[in-house]
Amino acid sequence: MEGDKAASGGGGLVLLNCFVSPFGNRVRIALKRKGLPYEEQPQNLADKSPLLLSSNPVHAKVPVLLVGGKSVCESLVILEFIDDAFSGEGEPLLPAAPCARSHARFWASYVDTKLPECAARVWRSPKGAAAVVEEGKKDLVAVLKTLEAELGAKPYFAGDALGYVDVALVPFAPWFLTYEKFGGFSVAAECPALAAWAARCARENECVAQSLPEPEHVFQFVCGMRKMFGLD
Amino acid sequence: MEGDKAASGGGGLVLLNCFVSPFGNRVRIALKRKGLPYEEQPQNLADKSPLLLSSNPVHAKVPVLLVGGKSVCESLVILEFIDDAFSGEGEPLLPAAPCARSHARFWASYVDTKLPECAARVWRSPKGAAAVVEEGKKDLVAVLKTLEAELGAKPYFAGDALGYVDVALVPFAPWFLTYEKFGGFSVAAECPALAAWAARCARENECVAQSLPEPEHVFQFVCGMRKMFGLD
Repeated sequence: MEGDKAASGGGGLVLLNCFVSPFGNRVRIALKRKGLPYEEQPQNLADKSPLLLSSNPVHAKVPVLLVGGKSVCESLVILEFIDDAFSGEGEPLLPAAPCARSHARFWASYVDTKLPECAARVWRSPKGAAAVVEEGKKDLVAVLKTLEAELGAKPYFAGDALGYVDVALVPFAPWFLTYEKFGGFSVAAECPALAAWAARCARENECVAQSLPEPEHVFQFVCGMRKMFGLD
Repeated sequence: MEGDKAASGGGGLVLLNCFVSPFGNRVRIALKRKGLPYEEQPQNLADKSPLLLSSNPVHAKVPVLLVGGKSVCESLVILEFIDDAFSGEGEPLLPAAPCARSHARFWASYVDTKLPECAARVWRSPKGAAAVVEEGKKDLVAVLKTLEAELGAKPYFAGDALGYVDVALVPFAPWFLTYEKFGGFSVAAECPALAAWAARCARENECVAQSLPEPEHVFQFVCGMRKMFGLD
């Protein structure tokens, strides 16, 4: 969706984000990986700014990337935009071969359609809804195991270096602690290769390390949000 | 409704589809629009074939496009694949400019995340769940109105000719009758410009006219499915 609101002037890139958002943090990683200068404007999702509402009127969600006077919304659409618009600057996130591109898009779409929905049942259910949480945990672990099987023995989903699926998935890693605390399980015990991959992404890629929040801060944020919504 | 007969060689295109699937029919339209020869293998979704299960093990859903020995899954991913892999043959579905590409991807993603979920509450709710159907209808009409507003005064979402969003959305048009019968409303009355757009897509584009089922056949199919699932 392209709004008509100007960002902070010129052709500069402005990212509307919230520091815990896995979706927004995908964009952070992609921008840093390309070395593109940008300004981040943190958004309060409990009291949405006029800029957020006007630049993403359909969903009123982060992330939004403001590009000159236009807005690009939806995190995977923004990743593709960065590849399309800045193809001259550094390696693209998506591979060049059509089949390989499809493969990457398929798995990023898998993450979006499966992971957040299962995860939300784990961390966003009202206190006492133990059966819902248990079912959510079971489904979430199945999703993580499917992703781990797709990773296989490769260091990254894309092969030897960070790529599109890695960038789509790794911003969920700081949420693992929250999933574990509410779901009563261990990602590292269930999916050791996936846990090792997440650590590798941050250890070997500054763009990842610089973009992700501390797991404990995510947990504190979630606890605060649960209180606000009367879930505890 | 069958697709053109395949080029039988190793690089032949085979589409696994079901004639009512809006997702599978997107791929039909895109293949016919490019003039690409392909074979269609109709799938019985009540008794999934070994080929469907092996070529889309993660979702076990149509559409699947088999390309030589490989499978490409998820309808929007397949549309992008067709643009990427056959860029030499005819106009691409997506525009060239990065912002315009993002805009098209945003709206196709909007269709996927919003429309089927609301629509399913209208046509797949058990008999007697009137409140669920009513709420689904309200949400579905809101989604269709949002799409109509995005269409605006343009003949197509893409402007003057059929493009990515048109191909993503128009296979839902043969379902409108079903939505109307179960939801008790009229798409043409609620969204006259959208109804006119759907008719225009079929009237002016053979690739659309040849790809879509009769609305009455969709309705009969849905009635049969509801019986099978004990919803009536």
